[in-house]
Amino acid sequence: MIETPYLLFLGDAPDMLAAKVAIGIKDWRPENAVAQFRLPGCGADLGLADMKLAEAKAAGAKTLVIGVANRGGVISAAWKEVLIEALEMGYDLASGLHNLLRDEGDLVAAAQTHGGTLHDVRVPTVGYPIANGVKRTGKRCLAIGTDCSVGKMYTALSIDAEMQARGLKSTFRATGQTGILITGHGVPLDAVIADFMAGSVEYLTPDNEADHWDHIEGQGSLFHVSYSGVTMALVHGGQPDALILCHEPTRAHMRGLPGYDLPTLERLRDTALPLAQVANPACQVVGISINTQHLSEEEAVAYLAEVEARMGLPAVDPFRHGAGRLVDALGAI
Amino acid sequence: MIETPYLLFLGDAPDMLAAKVAIGIKDWRPENAVAQFRLPGCGADLGLADMKLAEAKAAGAKTLVIGVANRGGVISAAWKEVLIEALEMGYDLASGLHNLLRDEGDLVAAAQTHGGTLHDVRVPTVGYPIANGVKRTGKRCLAIGTDCSVGKMYTALSIDAEMQARGLKSTFRATGQTGILITGHGVPLDAVIADFMAGSVEYLTPDNEADHWDHIEGQGSLFHVSYSGVTMALVHGGQPDALILCHEPTRAHMRGLPGYDLPTLERLRDTALPLAQVANPACQVVGISINTQHLSEEEAVAYLAEVEARMGLPAVDPFRHGAGRLVDALGAI
Repeated sequence: MIETPYLLFLGDAPDMLAAKVAIGIKDWRPENAVAQFRLPGCGADLGLADMKLAEAKAAGAKTLVIGVANRGGVISAAWKEVLIEALEMGYDLASGLHNLLRDEGDLVAAAQTHGGTLHDVRVPTVGYPIANGVKRTGKRCLAIGTDCSVGKMYTALSIDAEMQARGLKSTFRATGQTGILITGHGVPLDAVIADFMAGSVEYLTPDNEADHWDHIEGQGSLFHVSYSGVTMALVHGGQPDALILCHEPTRAHMRGLPGYDLPTLERLRDTALPLAQVANPACQVVGISINTQHLSEEEAVAYLAEVEARMGLPAVDPFRHGAGRLVDALGAI
Repeated sequence: MIETPYLLFLGDAPDMLAAKVAIGIKDWRPENAVAQFRLPGCGADLGLADMKLAEAKAAGAKTLVIGVANRGGVISAAWKEVLIEALEMGYDLASGLHNLLRDEGDLVAAAQTHGGTLHDVRVPTVGYPIANGVKRTGKRCLAIGTDCSVGKMYTALSIDAEMQARGLKSTFRATGQTGILITGHGVPLDAVIADFMAGSVEYLTPDNEADHWDHIEGQGSLFHVSYSGVTMALVHGGQPDALILCHEPTRAHMRGLPGYDLPTLERLRDTALPLAQVANPACQVVGISINTQHLSEEEAVAYLAEVEARMGLPAVDPFRHGAGRLVDALGAI
């Protein structure tokens, strides 16, 4: 559990693309984003107030979140100076970087001296159980993709936001580092030991009220040979009542795997649903989320209509048109 | 890579069941088993010569292998004395115990002093890559089960042995601790970090001669909600050309999961084959291995005939009747 709210450290990010994590926090949990902290040369701007450490601390910030990718896998001296000063002032630090805060001796020393916590959200801190498959109360929805990076996290976050806006009981359950930094907690599933993957998803989505929905962030794809085992653990550990199929229609091959074609949405449905029904016989496919960022508005509308007619399910781009129809579909089961 | 041959430490094992690992080594790699070492009260006997440490060392033993389960998860003082003496005499130690040799300060100290190696085969020692899905040369066969513990390792070992006996090119590829101790190397797949599971299987089964077969030890089941992610990584990382379906016909429910029925062999075939064809479009289901240990000879023969007629594939119990027909079937593809 990472203490909120945050001061978002953008460092010397060359552009907005490098600030993806910070953008996610600001978009999805604006109440967690007190301000942004930028170093000279920073090319990213979230449109938040620029604050120094003391100012943000006075404004309530508890954790300095590294919301950017670093260059060359090194935490630079310029960053280090700010991070150590933050610890001295009583901040915690949180990071999703591949190179870990805990591997930096000076940060560890400063954290110990000043009582701060270093959160490396790529590293599990819980001893997860082996999954027991026992039926849990409450409802769960899993976004499942034809490929990696097709919008599964965005889909789950936007459905959760729409449910919250309607006053429904709903929680986004993060399974990757960006999602964990956005919400302050979750399971870094790709870093969990194989035997405990499904158990970590059970842990993440425990018994709940009968009308409460967990929206589980998907990972990988059953058709992506590098990561399909992780996806499988979500399908069985998540015990979903509902699946949302996610797709990006312009991709030439599976991400990072030249020569591997994407499956059709029909094939994804026919593969994922029977596997999900092993853990939850009542599971249904309730809707389709299409990432239309590379289509014009006209193309997007036509594509969504074609998919909807073909599949007999609501097909939307939640970024363009909102998640309302997906929430309607969930409400109907 | 564990140095062979071994002295098999049976300790104070109460019975043969507790000596499962040692039995596997003696059955499958008798050339690796120089002798057995038993403590007073040991109820297991492999029928090997009983030797003390010095005698076995003189006979060529390089590694003392803990071939038994320990009681209560503790390495007892009686064991410790032997293990330390072995290190002092220049042995390496190898163990598949849950509690690790490397966590025992006195063993670590003795290993350092005497230049010995502590092999905890449950713990990966290699930094495995992320799977790249690139097609590899050579042939691969994966045993895949309706459930856990239905005879997948036995099936792969017996097919490998039959191929070797026929002078064919064949390697058993271990993915669990018993298999790793039997052969001296492999990947402890259930202990690998999620993101690297499929990559570890690619690493285990690299490019090979066109007529060489890898027989990959299966793990879990696509229908076992606790471990299905591990199985999925074998299906995609292993890139199998051939699947052998494995089943135990008397089981009332999935192992450790009351309320979960076993799938039929048809359902296993129809689920596993399309998933395997994502990584290798040429993959075929070539045969069926039935564990008939709870059936009489007459029942077993009748059951195998029924399955064979129903599925249109050779169905055998390799323990009862040998793996010859499965090897014939592999030879035909």
